[in-house]
Amino acid sequence: MTDIDYAQLPVPKFHRVAMIGIGLINGSLAKVIKGKGLADEIVACSRRESTIARAIELGIADRGVTDPAEAVIGADLVVIGTPVGAVGKVAKAMTSTLDRNAIITDVGSIKTKVIDDVLPHLPFRGRLVPGHPVAGTENSGPDAAFDTLFVGRHCILTPIAETDQDALAKVKALWQAAGSRVSTMTAEHHDRVLAITSHLPHLIAYTIVGTVADLEEHQQTEVLRYSAGGFTDFTRIAGSDPVMWRDIFLNNKEAVLEMLGRFSEDLSVLQRAIRWGDGETLESLFTRTREVRRGVIAEGQAFQRQAAVEAAGGSDDRG
Amino acid sequence: MTDIDYAQLPVPKFHRVAMIGIGLINGSLAKVIKGKGLADEIVACSRRESTIARAIELGIADRGVTDPAEAVIGADLVVIGTPVGAVGKVAKAMTSTLDRNAIITDVGSIKTKVIDDVLPHLPFRGRLVPGHPVAGTENSGPDAAFDTLFVGRHCILTPIAETDQDALAKVKALWQAAGSRVSTMTAEHHDRVLAITSHLPHLIAYTIVGTVADLEEHQQTEVLRYSAGGFTDFTRIAGSDPVMWRDIFLNNKEAVLEMLGRFSEDLSVLQRAIRWGDGETLESLFTRTREVRRGVIAEGQAFQRQAAVEAAGGSDDRG
Repeated sequence: MTDIDYAQLPVPKFHRVAMIGIGLINGSLAKVIKGKGLADEIVACSRRESTIARAIELGIADRGVTDPAEAVIGADLVVIGTPVGAVGKVAKAMTSTLDRNAIITDVGSIKTKVIDDVLPHLPFRGRLVPGHPVAGTENSGPDAAFDTLFVGRHCILTPIAETDQDALAKVKALWQAAGSRVSTMTAEHHDRVLAITSHLPHLIAYTIVGTVADLEEHQQTEVLRYSAGGFTDFTRIAGSDPVMWRDIFLNNKEAVLEMLGRFSEDLSVLQRAIRWGDGETLESLFTRTREVRRGVIAEGQAFQRQAAVEAAGGSDDRG
Repeated sequence: MTDIDYAQLPVPKFHRVAMIGIGLINGSLAKVIKGKGLADEIVACSRRESTIARAIELGIADRGVTDPAEAVIGADLVVIGTPVGAVGKVAKAMTSTLDRNAIITDVGSIKTKVIDDVLPHLPFRGRLVPGHPVAGTENSGPDAAFDTLFVGRHCILTPIAETDQDALAKVKALWQAAGSRVSTMTAEHHDRVLAITSHLPHLIAYTIVGTVADLEEHQQTEVLRYSAGGFTDFTRIAGSDPVMWRDIFLNNKEAVLEMLGRFSEDLSVLQRAIRWGDGETLESLFTRTREVRRGVIAEGQAFQRQAAVEAAGGSDDRG
């Protein structure tokens, strides 16, 4: 993993950006591109005419089409922002009309499967720059988009061995222009890290909220009423886009099942401690998790410190 | 469960309030009492001299002592705010010096065990008004206290059969003065509802953060770095006070184990769906959980609507 020097890269300028899918992530990126004048034109592609019309209405696309093959004509940047399960189909559809110099990137939450699905359809492997902006909200669709979504958030790029350096540099610069902290790693490593930081938490949140959804109706009403504290946070996570998350779990199966196995073992230990009244085990774990929380806060503060130093024109080698 | 008409109850006025324990919850309540002039004097009781000194410094106590027996002398309201596991010992300690008309309440997150532990030591059962403000942050200690902690949050009172109506009314009025939405239910019912809305989410958050804490060090650093999205929320929950939560799990064992059993079954179903690539099961669940999220938001909005109507002097029967 390599950190990037934010101040050194040029602002990228594109002629025509094709946004394949125009939901929360691609819509927000389109807002950044529009707001900063990073492209002459944005073409939105969606299966639904109504979504295209809405994107134009919101000013995040200049025009739109339903066919990916048509959308990418003349584009020098293509951003695939569909659910991960549809990426292969999209790549196949656009293969014949793609410009030979067009950069292809994506915003999917998993990377090995996306690369596997897209690569066979690309005429030039060197133009592929797989990416994952680690940002989002529980809302979806173009109306949910906003141009500060990526500010201060990580964006992980997972170039393949053949990725051209100039293509990588341009995509990096784009995400930096959006305010992201860009780093690079292999797709395999990305998928393992995200399995524990994002995919497993989502799976667990979906589960517990589902457990509540199965309660009898009068119980459920009370649960919603008194859901302050822990449960509210879980419902927010479990309110995320169903199709997107279905695809993530199906396509990052091995890493998710591995982390889920560890989690289940650890949960059994706590279950046993509760059953047998073993307060020491509980308190000892809860004390350690508090340290992790402090680590998360420190990591955020470290970034703010670095950002402040950079804003002042300096550099911070502690990165 | 009964909703209370906020506007109708008088502002309660106490002579001397004894705060047994002066952490986040009792400290915040003390700030409300001080800020609104609801008592002539607040006496803080803590095992640690340094905590007492800090509470006085922060202006949330007029004086303090380390002995509960001394703290309650002349008090007409005693608020027990220690971890749940210590409540019985505290009640025993103060039994000989308690005023016969003093109201005894508490702020513990579980209620049946607290009642069982406190009741044998009270000379007059009718003065006990068990309570649970459903509010908190990950921080603890008097420095974490703030006077808006309870605004718009639920406070559940679980009176016993013998609880005097005037004592109940005064404690209700106190929490309403703090901005809480007060309701009453039996202690048993409270403990079952909270097991799913609060205790199980905490247990799960503790578990997954613990799973991360067990990763090798270089992996852990990356997890903290990319913890945006799901995992950050979990670390916040898992940063809560270790002793307080140890006591909650040990003292609400049956309800927590019952809910944990349901959760584990549901998680196994999802695990199997992922392993076998069963996208329909996943998407169908994720769609249902999104509905639950909407229910939580609607519940919050319903309250805001009601609060607005009340602020305008009206009433909202839809409550």
